[in-house]
Order: sequence, then structure tokens, then C-alpha cells
Amino acid sequence: MLGWLLIGLALMMGPSLIADMASVRHDASYFMIAAVTSLFSGLTLLLLSSSDETFDLSRRQAFLITGLSWLVLPVFGAIPFMGIGLTFIEGYFEAASGFTTTGATVLVGLDHLSPGILLWRSMTQFIGGLGIIVLGILVMPFLKVGGMQLFKTESSDHSEKIFAKGLDFARWIAGIFIGLVILCAFLYAAVGMSAFDAVNHAMTTVSTGGFSTHDASFGYFRSPAAEWVASFFMMAGGLPFVAVIRTLRGRRDALLSDIQARGYILFLFVAALAVALNLVWTNVADPDDALRLAVFHVISIVTTTGYASTDYQLWGTFAIGAFFLLTFIGGCSGSTAGGIKIYRIQILWKLAMAHLTRIVSPSHVVVVSYSTRRVDDEVAFAILTFLVAMLVSAAAFTLVLAALGLDLVTAVTGSVTCIANVGPGLGPVIGPAGNFSTLPDSAKAVLSIAMILGRLEFFTLLVMLTPAFWRG
Amino acid sequence: MLGWLLIGLALMMGPSLIADMASVRHDASYFMIAAVTSLFSGLTLLLLSSSDETFDLSRRQAFLITGLSWLVLPVFGAIPFMGIGLTFIEGYFEAASGFTTTGATVLVGLDHLSPGILLWRSMTQFIGGLGIIVLGILVMPFLKVGGMQLFKTESSDHSEKIFAKGLDFARWIAGIFIGLVILCAFLYAAVGMSAFDAVNHAMTTVSTGGFSTHDASFGYFRSPAAEWVASFFMMAGGLPFVAVIRTLRGRRDALLSDIQARGYILFLFVAALAVALNLVWTNVADPDDALRLAVFHVISIVTTTGYASTDYQLWGTFAIGAFFLLTFIGGCSGSTAGGIKIYRIQILWKLAMAHLTRIVSPSHVVVVSYSTRRVDDEVAFAILTFLVAMLVSAAAFTLVLAALGLDLVTAVTGSVTCIANVGPGLGPVIGPAGNFSTLPDSAKAVLSIAMILGRLEFFTLLVMLTPAFWRG
Repeated sequence: MLGWLLIGLALMMGPSLIADMASVRHDASYFMIAAVTSLFSGLTLLLLSSSDETFDLSRRQAFLITGLSWLVLPVFGAIPFMGIGLTFIEGYFEAASGFTTTGATVLVGLDHLSPGILLWRSMTQFIGGLGIIVLGILVMPFLKVGGMQLFKTESSDHSEKIFAKGLDFARWIAGIFIGLVILCAFLYAAVGMSAFDAVNHAMTTVSTGGFSTHDASFGYFRSPAAEWVASFFMMAGGLPFVAVIRTLRGRRDALLSDIQARGYILFLFVAALAVALNLVWTNVADPDDALRLAVFHVISIVTTTGYASTDYQLWGTFAIGAFFLLTFIGGCSGSTAGGIKIYRIQILWKLAMAHLTRIVSPSHVVVVSYSTRRVDDEVAFAILTFLVAMLVSAAAFTLVLAALGLDLVTAVTGSVTCIANVGPGLGPVIGPAGNFSTLPDSAKAVLSIAMILGRLEFFTLLVMLTPAFWRG
Repeated sequence: MLGWLLIGLALMMGPSLIADMASVRHDASYFMIAAVTSLFSGLTLLLLSSSDETFDLSRRQAFLITGLSWLVLPVFGAIPFMGIGLTFIEGYFEAASGFTTTGATVLVGLDHLSPGILLWRSMTQFIGGLGIIVLGILVMPFLKVGGMQLFKTESSDHSEKIFAKGLDFARWIAGIFIGLVILCAFLYAAVGMSAFDAVNHAMTTVSTGGFSTHDASFGYFRSPAAEWVASFFMMAGGLPFVAVIRTLRGRRDALLSDIQARGYILFLFVAALAVALNLVWTNVADPDDALRLAVFHVISIVTTTGYASTDYQLWGTFAIGAFFLLTFIGGCSGSTAGGIKIYRIQILWKLAMAHLTRIVSPSHVVVVSYSTRRVDDEVAFAILTFLVAMLVSAAAFTLVLAALGLDLVTAVTGSVTCIANVGPGLGPVIGPAGNFSTLPDSAKAVLSIAMILGRLEFFTLLVMLTPAFWRG
């Protein structure tokens, strides 16, 4: 399977290769090397594996292939970046940031980079975004990671069926995802972006990745219309895709009646309104601008995209505190967004309320349900343990980054923004006006792992560290 | 009961009243007002309550009396501070910081304050420290808050027995606590402190409170010996008092074989060693000083005392990151320390490992036990929900403080240090070299609530916000 993935990756490098060959510099040698290396490695893996392997994955194999995909693809994805002078670790960081749709960058001077490189950055997020939705909907429930078993569909009930029935789902996911990207690109072009910028940003918007073709991100366009378009499609990228698919398949109310989608929209609305009111109250912006700026940046951070059109750290202490906390939130299950995610927050709230009721009346039997399903102890523990894993990871990465010489704000927000796959942190170094280029290579390596660990919801990778995983 | 507590409080003001009358200024008027007000309020409450009430508390009443004690006592404890020019909110903050044994202060110029005021600050921590051990051992297991039901002794099994059998335990707790304070005071005096400083610091050391009689805290003494004495008694204050009692009652190995006490000592050792090695490695201190400085400050923060003999923010980024994370940890159950606490961290670790095992082998039945007891779902949920409550509280307080104009580092570390009842935060404002005096009154009010909420482990107060608590 990894072989097939690498061959696919080599093919995905095609457009970038062509773009760079067609550009003024005509230098696509690193794309050639990268594509040939991927293709060759992929073919080698295919030849090494016996041909009559069926695709009935065991759970253990599913863990392995998932973990390996996100760890290994950035190795090959890094090669083109080495062509523009990055070290391997920097290239790995940039590629991992792409495939995990984080959007943190070590590149400065994006406006002067070759079109092939810029397109490749966007492609990694496109691939990663599509991959994470498929993973979230078809694989995670089956792996029982992070409480995703709550969203089991018939297609993820048995390992044998995962590829049979799942294929239909995967087609729908890909169709909707690509449809959204095309629609988004057209609208970006309609509001004034160049065709190249429109295509690149469409890929990094719907995947809630956040890579831009300009150092100033959306600040470059100075276009309120473009920010509204981006807000809508980032929001769409964070929706629960299962509900989107059901809606498009004819169940008109599937999305509107989805408890998670509703909570997500409501949360975005309340958070954006609070930030907008604060902007007006503190005279940072007039009401019109305040609403747009608040909506755009709140959606950008909550959906874990990471675009910015201005440095929101200049909005005052409330905005800084709010954006720090919004970094944790995330979008819906089975979307491209990272973070804690809305369904976990909703269920954690219900569990806390149930706990309060039990403390007050110990004899009371409290059943927690979510949507139409009962939240059994297994799911409750998975969600609570997810939160513990996230916080322990954030703490551990903070400590390591501090040991590597990063100041407290950079260490804390760097860990959190990478674990939650958001992109920008806070402070002068990695804030929305900065980037990760000045960090030491060691910190870049650490944060690459943080991004992948967060993207795979911790336990998918952590299980491989247990001896039991490798036994028998 | 609140009446008796207020009468007790009035009596506890006696020594301060005498101290201020005997001092050069002879002005003890505010202590007179405070003592008379407390006494009068207490007597009024006693007269209002019917005399044939037995002391069989329902759980609901136990919640009420616990919550009210920590909310109301600072109102009376604040009065003496208003005599030296503090606003009521500042006085409430200082008194709440005392009774919760947090140790955050809004006072500047401690060295020039009257002995009565200084003694009163230490007394609030002495009272609060003793109170919190009694609460943790005798009341919390019965309230089933924060997983403390794991430590149920026979004396906390039934409500009727809580005062009968509990009285014996309470005597032991008070005896050991007062014994430790006396011993500590003698050793402080032996290493060179004045009698007044020795007594005051002994009370705030064993209660892991951290109030000092000098602005420079332990930096004033420039005495390595005093820091070693403090390290030992702060460590003692964070031990599980039940195990200490059992040891003193004759079961010699009770403390050494206690899984929590062992984890606690081991953690202190490892953390102090890591900080010491970092200090030597970065040439901040020579090995001798490094060990003492690391031991003293790590124990000070982990036990939630909050003393400092130097500004450890100058030790570099690793130390800053480490001290930020150490703020969360806390001591053992049934001690004077706040924070997450060692047993919760140990159980969270076991739950996470069990979760990993279940993901790898879903058919496996995993039983989590702690010491000799099985961690049932009720305890597991209580502990996981405690963590969620702590983090949501920290997030909420951060947001409110940011809205009140505090910078991110002050807002985050201020919330955490108050919730965990530690004392100092990080940054130039509330760091170990600063204090809370310059914060706006609104922030002081918010942080007072944070200290009390954290001290009562969130749910003791939160239950009172549920309608179910007040029904029937």
C-alpha cells in the first residue's frame, strides 16, 4: 500500500514539475529527482510485496500503514524543497506541515519562489486534506482512536468491508472535496485573484491548510471579498463530511440537523461576534471591518487553517488570549480540521454535567448520549484520554522546545499550533506576522513530529510504541 | 457551623491583635474591628440556628459548609488588611490567598509592615493549611469530589460517623501539623532567623502557603541552610497525611510503601536533578549552588508553596518552561498542596496505558488498580473530569484576565498559579520577582475566585451552580 501511495505521490509531483519546466527558470531538476525517487521506491515496495496479498487489513496493519504514510511521505515530499536550499529537516518540516494541513512554514520570500515549489506546497495540503478526511471517516472509527468509533458507519464495521463498502464513501469524499476546491478557485478568480493564486489558495483553503503563495498571506490581496470567500470555504472544510455527503445524497436536513455541525456554526458565530465586538469596543476597527476581520481570523484559527490578513496580535490582550484558546478548538469529525474537535468538546461538556449530577445525587443513573447514539464508557474514555494525550504532548513538546532555547510564548504556542495543526503561533517569532524559519533545526524536527502526532490523534502513533503492538 | 468557624477566626486574630498592640505603633484598631465583627457574626449565626441540631451532615450540607467557609472567611480575614490602606477587594484577595495557602500577594513593602499584619498573613495560611488537610481526608472522600473517594477510610464511610470516628483522625492531623510547624520554627531559628521570622515562615512553610515577611522572600536571608530546612518542610507539607499518621501510629513502612509518597519523592528528585543539571550545563551556577537552588525552587513550586530565593526566570528558557509546567503538578492527596496532585497524575498515566492496551487488543480486559484498590469507572471519571474542569477553568480565567487587559503570559500563568494555589506566576508582572499589586481590582477579584475554586477542587463549588443541588 505504501508502494501505491509513493507512486501516487510521484504522479502528484507532475503538475509542479511541468510548472517549473514552463517557468522562466526552466529548472525542475529537484522535482525530477523527487518524482523518480518516489516512483522507484514505490515500485520497489510493490515488487517486494507478494502479489496475492488481499486488501483485508487487520487493525494492526491499518495502524502501521496510517502511521507510516504520514511519517514517510514527507521524506519524499521534502526533496523539492532541498532544491531551493533548505536542509533536509527544513524540507521535512515544510512537507509534514503540508501533508498534515498545518500550514506552518520555514520559507521566507514566498512571492519570489518558483511556481512549481508554490504549487507543490499547495498540493501537499490538497493530498493531506483529502487523506485526513478518508482516514477520519473510514479508518479511525475502525481503529477506535479518539472516540471516533462513535461515528462508525456500516462501511467501517468490519475489516473485510472497509474497502468494499468504503470505496463508495471514498468516491463521494473525493468528489465533494475536489468539487469544493474547483468552486473555491473559481470564486477566488472572480474576486480578483490571478488564476495561479486562485488555484493554490483554493487547495489550501478547503484542506484548511493555510499555505499561501505570498509572505503576507491574505494581507497581500487587500480584498475583503477574497476574505469572505475564504471564510466560507474554510468553514466548509471544517464541516463533518459524512453529514455533507448525506445532504448531497438527498437527505436535505442531514447537515442542518447534525448536532456537531450546528454546534460548530454556533461556536464560530459566537466567537467571531465576541472578537468583533471587542474590536469595535476598543476602537481598533469600525463595525464593518471588525466583523469581516473577526469572522475571517476566527474561522481561520478554529478550522485550523492559519491564514491571516493582518497581525491580530495588535488587536489587544483579549484578542491574543482568545486566539490562543481558539487554537485548541478545531473543527468537526471527518473534516480536514485538527484540534480537539467540536464533538469531543460537546461530549466532554455532557460528561462533566453528568459527573456534576452524579455528585449531587449519587443514586441517579445518568446516561450520556450524543446525537442518537449512547456515549458508552469506551467512547467516553477514548475522548477523555485523547484530551490527556493532547495536553501531555503539548507539555512535553513545550519542555523540549524550551530546552532548545525557545522563549515561553514561542514554546507553548508553537507546540499547541503544531499539535492542533493550525499553523501560526503567538509572539514575535512564530506569530501571524512571523514564521518558523528562524527556529533551530532541532526545534523544526521536534515540531514536525508534533504535527504528525496531532494529525493522527496521538494514539495511532503511540500504539506503535507499546510492546504489545509488536507481539504475536 | 459557620458560626463556630467565625468565633474560631476571631480567636485566631488574638495573637496579631496583641502583637500590634505591643509593637511601636500600638495601633491594633483594625484587628479589634475584625475580631469583634467575626465574633459578633459568629454568635449571631449560633443564636439563629436551633440548638438541638445534631451534627449529622447531609452531603448537601457538607458541600454548602465547605464552599461557604472558603468564600466567607476571607471577607472577615480581609478587614485587618483594609487597615493598612488596601481596598476590600485587595484585602479579600490577600485573605483568600492566605486561607487557600496560595501565597500570591498584593502587598509591597512587607519588611515595613506591622508585626500584627505579618503574623495575620501567616495565620491565614496556618488555618487554611490545617483546614485543607482535614477537608481532604475527612470530607472530600465523602463528597466524592475529584476522585478522593479512592481514599475513603472507615471514618468517611457514613455521614453519621464522620464526626464520631473522624474526630480521632482530626486530632492526629492537627497534632502532626502543629508539631511540624513547631519543629520547623525551631530549625529556622537555629539556622539564624529571628524568632518572629522563624514562627511566621514555619507556618507558611508547612502549610505550603508561601507568604513571607520580606519582599525578597527567602532571598532576604541569604542562607543556604534556611533553604534546605524550607525544602524539607515544604516537602513534608505535600506528603499524604494519612500515610504520615499511619507511620506515626506504628506502621513503620506506611509512608515508604505508599505508592503516592514514593511517586512524589521520585518526581521531586528527577525534576530537581534536571533543573540542577541544566543550571550547571548553562553555567548559571556551580554544582553546589545549582543543586540547592534547584531543590528549593522545584519543591517550592511542586508543593505549591511559592517561595523564591532568586528570580528563576533568569535561569534561561528551559527553567522557565519547566517551572511553568511544574505549576500544574501539585503534591499528594490529603496534604496542604494544590495542583493536579500526584495520585491523579499516576492514575491518569495508568488509564492512558490501559486505553492504549485496549486499542491494540480490544478483546483484552484491563483492570486499573491504584495501591491495593481498584480504580472503578466512578473514580476514573471523577479524575478525568477534574482535569477537564481544571483546564476549562484555566482557559476561562485566562480569557477574562486577557479581556481585563493582562498580557498573555500574565493571564495564563496568573490563572494557573492561582487555580493550582502556587503563588508566583511568570513574566515581569507576577513572576517570582514581582507580585499581584499592580493588577486592576477586577483581575484581583477574578483571581480570588480562581484560588478558592482550585482549592475546593472545582466541583465542590460548581455543584452549587446546578439547579438539582437546590431542589428537594
